[in-house]
Parts: sequence; structure tokens; C-alpha cells
Amino acid sequence: MAIVQVTIVPLGTGSTSVSAYVAAVERVLAQAGETIKHQLTPMSTIIEGELDEVLAVVRRMHETPFENGALRVSTTITIDDRRDKRGTMEQKMKAVTDKLQNDL
Amino acid sequence: MAIVQVTIVPLGTGSTSVSAYVAAVERVLAQAGETIKHQLTPMSTIIEGELDEVLAVVRRMHETPFENGALRVSTTITIDDRRDKRGTMEQKMKAVTDKLQNDL
Amino acid sequence: MAIVQVTIVPLGTGSTSVSAYVAAVERVLAQAGETIKHQLTPMSTIIEGELDEVLAVVRRMHETPFENGALRVSTTITIDDRRDKRGTMEQKMKAVTDKLQNDL
Amino acid sequence: MAIVQVTIVPLGTGSTSVSAYVAAVERVLAQAGETIKHQLTPMSTIIEGELDEVLAVVRRMHETPFENGALRVSTTITIDDRRDKRGTMEQKMKAVTDKLQNDL
Repeated sequence: MAIVQVTIVPLGTGSTSVSAYVAAVERVLAQAGETIKHQLTPMSTIIEGELDEVLAVVRRMHETPFENGALRVSTTITIDDRRDKRGTMEQKMKAVTDKLQNDL
Repeated sequence: MAIVQVTIVPLGTGSTSVSAYVAAVERVLAQAGETIKHQLTPMSTIIEGELDEVLAVVRRMHETPFENGALRVSTTITIDDRRDKRGTMEQKMKAVTDKLQNDL
Repeated sequence: MAIVQVTIVPLGTGSTSVSAYVAAVERVLAQAGETIKHQLTPMSTIIEGELDEVLAVVRRMHETPFENGALRVSTTITIDDRRDKRGTMEQKMKAVTDKLQNDL
Repeated sequence: MAIVQVTIVPLGTGSTSVSAYVAAVERVLAQAGETIKHQLTPMSTIIEGELDEVLAVVRRMHETPFENGALRVSTTITIDDRRDKRGTMEQKMKAVTDKLQNDL
């Protein structure tokens, strides 16, 4: 089980806004459907699942801006891959927030 | 106005769990108080504000694992700095989700 | 043609030194042989080639620390993928250094 | 002593080429002079020095594309900060290449 953070940025589009490209990339995830858990943040998309399955989706996401006219794309991927226990997005958030609540 | 994504990882701690370090880093943000808007995600912390103010907080966050015993820290910072309009976390999310809802 | 920057960090190894893991990862590249151009820097490995071929090598590199005992691995990948011209490591370096030399 | 990897990308410039911006950023380093050790790679600039001094230079580098007309800049910074020993770019490269040569 891996958690993967992805940011996809088209270069040289002539507009400082990239939200149309980000929306197109998100549609790839929506089509991947129920099988792949994901969360949109203001800086990236975070995806959880079997690493090879997630990377296959990320590969399709990276292709999307080209299909929408971009000629250069910069994609940053961070993989958090844990094999000693089942690390999920929910478990990671809970581990931190539990510790923060112990402060109160 | 800038949005900054930060991930702080201690190396060589002898444990695969880093949530105690992440919680300590989050406390720096809690102490920064109302003045700085932030969001915890499963892979990073996202902070919004005037760039120099945000970077000063990130600098203190980076120091936290050392104060808790780490001897090597890897910190990754992504700055999204937009000067043509007031780019906020909320505005970025809305720009994408509006476009996705137009699909329905 | 894409240029891909990779940093692979094992977590929880109990040592602040990661050079043995980095060397193991580099051996994967050495075995990939002549077909794939790459460069080691103090912070990452940079690889040039057809994107799918490069990503297949990166996938094997990511597996290496687990084979050497790590239980958690953080891998960061940055893809610079340009479709309007053949962007190579050499061409990118030359484009910048030519501009810098014009200053003299 | 820290080693810092920086990538600065202007968005919405209307051109897929960013080498003019990269050259402008490199000039900031050249002006910082002898006091700060740095290396240009095809994907980033790597800087070595006291962390606060390096971050002050990176802050000026980040401002450069705005001075050259960009309205949105994405900057990625990776800090490798080691306090148990003097980690330099040269020492990190040697630690890996020594291990690779032992294979022969």
C-alpha cells in the first residue's frame, strides 16, 4: 500500500491559470472510479492504493495536459511506500491528530 | 500572497513512524496562531500567507525535529507565488471544483 | 524525450547515512547499461530517455532499498517532459550556459 | 551545513523555454560570489552552505523571474540538513562513488 502525491504543471501555456488543466487531470481519477482513493488539495492530488496501480493512473494523468494542448509538462510525484504496516491516508492523519489532541 | 507546501522528514531515527515528529512540527503552526492559515494533508502541510511570513514559520518547523533528537532532516518546500491576483487555497480549490461541476 | 530527477530515501533505518542505499540504487542504473543516460548529483539522480522506459527503471530503483532491508521508502520524482522539441540534459545545460556566457 | 536543491519555474510565460529565466536566477548566485558553493544540473541548482545564508540566496533567486516579467512562479526547495557531521556536496558524492567502486 502506497500513498502518492502528484502535482502536474503545464509550462508555456500563456496563462497563469492552470485550473482547467488540473480539472482535466482530476477527470482521469474520477474515471478510475471507486477502485482508487484520492484527495484534492490546493497544491496537489494525493492518491492511495497498490503502488503499480497508482503509478499507472499517474501516468495517464501526466498525459492529460498534452491532450489539452500543452507542449511541456512538469510533473512531481512523491511516493510514501510502507511495507511494515498498512499505511493509509486515514491512518497517517489519525496518527498525527491523535498526538496533537493529547496536548489538550 | 503565496501558498507553500511543506514536508519534513527526519532520517536515521530508527523508526519507520514519523507521526510524533510531524505532530511536533504542527505545534509550531498552532503557536503561530490565527495569523497564518494552514491545512494538514496525509503527505504535507499547506500554508497560506505573505511569503516572507510563511517562510519564517517553515524555518522554525524545519528546526523542530532537531529539537526532538533527529540528527538529519530532509525538508521539501513548494512555493506557489502568484502576483497577478490574490491566489488563496480556497480560490484554487474552487477554480478546479467549479470546472469539475460543469461536467455534470 | 523526458528528463527525470529521482531522489530515493529510506526511512527508519537507524542510521543518518544513506549512501549504501544510494549506491544500491545506482547499480540498477548501471545494469540498465548504455541504453539510458544518467547523471548522479549530490541530491538526486537525473535520467534521460523515453518516458516509459525511464519510469520502468525508476520503478526498479524504488524497489532496491526494500531489497536491502528498508521497511519504508520515500521517493520523489520530477518529470520534465517536452514534446515541442527534443529536450536533452545536454541541450538544457547549453541553453543556460550560453545565456550566461553572453554576459561576459 | 546544509545542501539545498532548488528548481524555479515561471508559469504562464507563453513560451515552453525557461532557460532565460534560469540564467537570470543563476546570475544571483554568481553575484553571491565565492562565499556560496553551487552546482547547476539539468533539473535544478544545488547550493551548499550555512542554512540561513543559503535560504537568503534562494529567496532572492525566487524573486528573479518576477523582476523579468513572470506573474506566477513555482519554486521547489529540498533541504538536506545534517547536524551529526559536516555533510558537503563533495562528501556525499564520494560516499556513493566509493561504494560503487568497491563493486569492481
